[in-house]
Amino acid sequence: MISNPASKYVPFSPFAKDFSDRTWPSKRITQPPIWMSTDLRDGNQSLIEPMSVTSKLRFFELLVKIGFKEIEVGFPSASQTDFDFVRKLIDENRIPDDVTIIGLTQARQDLIERTAEAMAGAKTSMIHMYNACAPAFRRIVFKMEKEEVKQIAINGTRMVKAAIAKYPQTKWRYEYSPEVFSTTEPEFALEVSNAVIDEWQPTPEDPMVLNLPATIEATTPNLYADQIEWMHRNLHNRESVVISLHPHNDRGTGVAAAELGLMAGADRVEGCLFGNGERTGNVCLVTLALNLYTQGIHPGLDFSDIDEVRRIVEECNQIPVHPRHPYAGDLVFTAFSGSHQDAIKKGFAIQKPDAIWEVPYLPIDPADVGRSYDAVIRVNSQSGKGGVSYLLEQEHGLVLPRRLQIEFSRAIQAVTDSTGKEVNPEQVYGIFEKEYLRTEGPWKLVTHKITSQPKAEDGTQQFDIEIDMLEKGQPIKLHGKGEGALAAFINALDIPIRIMDYTEHAIGSGTDTKAATYVEMRIGENPSGFGVGIHQDILTSSFKAILSAINRHALQHDGKLNI
Amino acid sequence: MISNPASKYVPFSPFAKDFSDRTWPSKRITQPPIWMSTDLRDGNQSLIEPMSVTSKLRFFELLVKIGFKEIEVGFPSASQTDFDFVRKLIDENRIPDDVTIIGLTQARQDLIERTAEAMAGAKTSMIHMYNACAPAFRRIVFKMEKEEVKQIAINGTRMVKAAIAKYPQTKWRYEYSPEVFSTTEPEFALEVSNAVIDEWQPTPEDPMVLNLPATIEATTPNLYADQIEWMHRNLHNRESVVISLHPHNDRGTGVAAAELGLMAGADRVEGCLFGNGERTGNVCLVTLALNLYTQGIHPGLDFSDIDEVRRIVEECNQIPVHPRHPYAGDLVFTAFSGSHQDAIKKGFAIQKPDAIWEVPYLPIDPADVGRSYDAVIRVNSQSGKGGVSYLLEQEHGLVLPRRLQIEFSRAIQAVTDSTGKEVNPEQVYGIFEKEYLRTEGPWKLVTHKITSQPKAEDGTQQFDIEIDMLEKGQPIKLHGKGEGALAAFINALDIPIRIMDYTEHAIGSGTDTKAATYVEMRIGENPSGFGVGIHQDILTSSFKAILSAINRHALQHDGKLNI
Repeated sequence: MISNPASKYVPFSPFAKDFSDRTWPSKRITQPPIWMSTDLRDGNQSLIEPMSVTSKLRFFELLVKIGFKEIEVGFPSASQTDFDFVRKLIDENRIPDDVTIIGLTQARQDLIERTAEAMAGAKTSMIHMYNACAPAFRRIVFKMEKEEVKQIAINGTRMVKAAIAKYPQTKWRYEYSPEVFSTTEPEFALEVSNAVIDEWQPTPEDPMVLNLPATIEATTPNLYADQIEWMHRNLHNRESVVISLHPHNDRGTGVAAAELGLMAGADRVEGCLFGNGERTGNVCLVTLALNLYTQGIHPGLDFSDIDEVRRIVEECNQIPVHPRHPYAGDLVFTAFSGSHQDAIKKGFAIQKPDAIWEVPYLPIDPADVGRSYDAVIRVNSQSGKGGVSYLLEQEHGLVLPRRLQIEFSRAIQAVTDSTGKEVNPEQVYGIFEKEYLRTEGPWKLVTHKITSQPKAEDGTQQFDIEIDMLEKGQPIKLHGKGEGALAAFINALDIPIRIMDYTEHAIGSGTDTKAATYVEMRIGENPSGFGVGIHQDILTSSFKAILSAINRHALQHDGKLNI
Repeated sequence: MISNPASKYVPFSPFAKDFSDRTWPSKRITQPPIWMSTDLRDGNQSLIEPMSVTSKLRFFELLVKIGFKEIEVGFPSASQTDFDFVRKLIDENRIPDDVTIIGLTQARQDLIERTAEAMAGAKTSMIHMYNACAPAFRRIVFKMEKEEVKQIAINGTRMVKAAIAKYPQTKWRYEYSPEVFSTTEPEFALEVSNAVIDEWQPTPEDPMVLNLPATIEATTPNLYADQIEWMHRNLHNRESVVISLHPHNDRGTGVAAAELGLMAGADRVEGCLFGNGERTGNVCLVTLALNLYTQGIHPGLDFSDIDEVRRIVEECNQIPVHPRHPYAGDLVFTAFSGSHQDAIKKGFAIQKPDAIWEVPYLPIDPADVGRSYDAVIRVNSQSGKGGVSYLLEQEHGLVLPRRLQIEFSRAIQAVTDSTGKEVNPEQVYGIFEKEYLRTEGPWKLVTHKITSQPKAEDGTQQFDIEIDMLEKGQPIKLHGKGEGALAAFINALDIPIRIMDYTEHAIGSGTDTKAATYVEMRIGENPSGFGVGIHQDILTSSFKAILSAINRHALQHDGKLNI
């Protein structure tokens, strides 16, 4: 570090004059904002591997299911993939009537026309034009004076009007972003925004969106709120403008910036699920929405099955949700300390179903997001010899996924509860084996036979599987087909299974190597549970893991599947 | 979700009366707070596997090196491990003179005495006593009236005075926490706090700490700041009290709560590195400190080698730092979009070493935290056929760690820069092979021979290795010893290597299985770089990966090691 950082960094101070007559600190959020997801645009453009069309479609459908009515679907003038994706959505009629798609564009005629071309034919399309207004960008990137930057915004707005006039069958809307609003002089941001508003001439019935992005989060969140309130108070034609926030998280205060910004007068928030997006990410819309929920305000978005949302997002983005991420992380509904566990137990004991939620240490009822609370018993935390996961890894080469570690602690707790004794390290593997590897459920794998052949058209394979199993001791035969061996196996079982998580690793090396497979599955609409398989052969190991999960499920439901 | 959440959740409103004369929104943070790390207490107690004594020592030494002067070292009355660890620190003289250790205790005589016993003998020890004051805790957990709860705090304070009187050789300090301050009626929190202050009788020369924890984050951060300012204005003997913040992150606004709380009059912040801690974690002290840094205020903590800090913390906590974590995540200094890359390039071109930092899209100079900026070229993002990682995984079974994906993009960029053409998918593996697998550096592994035998005392093994190598084509022999094969190999090389990251996976299955090893290493004090090895044998694969990293390093430094 340099010894005197003041020589290298200066804080951004938006206001030369006093702004102590701000009113937002006395305001409360009383209703949800308009939500806009930019997962498919800002989120997607910040992935090492951008999403495939299949992933984008899956993500789009997830967003619709959650309840988003405004979805930014791409940057069609900058990317042929995005252009094709937007056309696919429109041409295949995949956009519900009450959903507006949004497409980003720079303020250049050819790009604007291309964007309109991409988005024509949808019921409602919003063109989102931006140009950077902050001083560093004017000086370093564009070498332009203020007036030129303002003219770009005005001319661009005119070009948007001209471009959409060609496609009257679509209801067009307009969003403008003075990019890097967060470090732009408020007076200049206002001047440009008012010029755009005057040019577009929105009405209360047909408002435009003015998006004020913290493209790079540069200040404590109260200053961003000050900037928003100042704009809110000084904007032309305020009743015809939807003020939108677009916080990034460079200082780790994106959620706060959005909340304070809403108090300051904003109407709408743009962000991504679980905070994906450039660098530190866009603001996390899951956290923002569920924060409203625990304040007694329904966010208008449905996160009642947050694990499923998380699984799809993780698969599409290839970025994990952190174990401590609010509401969704693996560890956020766990309690390790005895005093916390006691307090939570007392809280659950008196909590009535329809009463105000007040279980200590749990800010939200885990059931409201489809999750459960876990009291994790840590074996030998006192002796300092290392706990369950350490033992299983050191002695048996098993590296359990975190959620399985938490689940397994319940099996250990069951033993301590029934024996009234602490479990010692030697007993740990025995409990693991009994719970996962030799689960005494109804089904047992005997052998299987697989054949596969290429499907001519597209290089995919067709797998056929024959399985010999025992069902409550009676031999049965099953057949299944699929594009993978695992898919064929699951199809053969003919049980409504969804794989929520799948991990596999080698134990040992050389000729002794075995594969350990951990699957987290849902059967029907039941809560998810794990199964574990170990075998020399990687496929057999997977099959055993799936059966382990099914058998464990059946054991918890009187030997039946409870679908 | 339930249809009417207002029936289940109510927002916490701290003030019955108007508090619109708050002053914090017009304040700025002008100096760093007193930092207190609770990594070894709140952090440790929320891990699935608590730290071993070795890990705790390592973490303690890291905290000292970073510059923490107040370190909470455990909950010695609740855990024999913690007691022994604190004694070890003291008895082995491991605590620098200017560092105060802190031990948590509940307000019970036996526990307080045990805590004093654990902490006696250090130069300066702080006893940190807490009792829960929030209404839900009084009613549900303790079934106590306000007066009883207050008496616990007063009596406990008396007991602390009595307990420490037995150990006059130590300079004792006192910290009191009205636990769950965040949802306690401010008037009651003040009443209890003032009673404790009156009992302890701190002086400006020997102040006590009053810690006001957001044990569960319950409100938008501005309300927490209101609570803090109200306490700050109404506290007895304010000049003799250090007001401390202890934000958790249940609503994702812990960093904001700390920043606004400092504006509101607090002097000190408790938290954990990278936001470890119960549930969603304590506030992240790395983010808070570096947020000050970019505002021109030196935080008084040294994060100039953030990768090294991160590596140690990840190893001790067994919890990864998220790729989008401010300042430390893998992806926060990357730019994927062409327009961002252009702007950054222009910014770097005119940025002078001692001038104010103003490179677009980079809120901090990556070099200030020992990192570098990466412009990631995404091959085929336009064609939608999947990018580099997808290709390497689908076609070659290679699953690259995220930081290697970013590093490898530089090798691809070098090719596109020199040829002026886009790289096509077929070329990707060729570039990977040339860069990592057939690196044309000075060293080449020929064969190796390993013997190992148990060390009698503690079950560890002693490995001896003989290596036949080529150095610039000339055969050389090396010998090394170590407690593992890899350690022996590194010792034989006799190069100052630190392994920053190590990943290994199987390629294929059955008799064809190979191991792929990825190591991220530092040689001397140089920036870290990756090496990759692939081989049937897992050890040979590791050795090759290490040599790959060394050879790549040498190629960048005229064939020398630049140590």
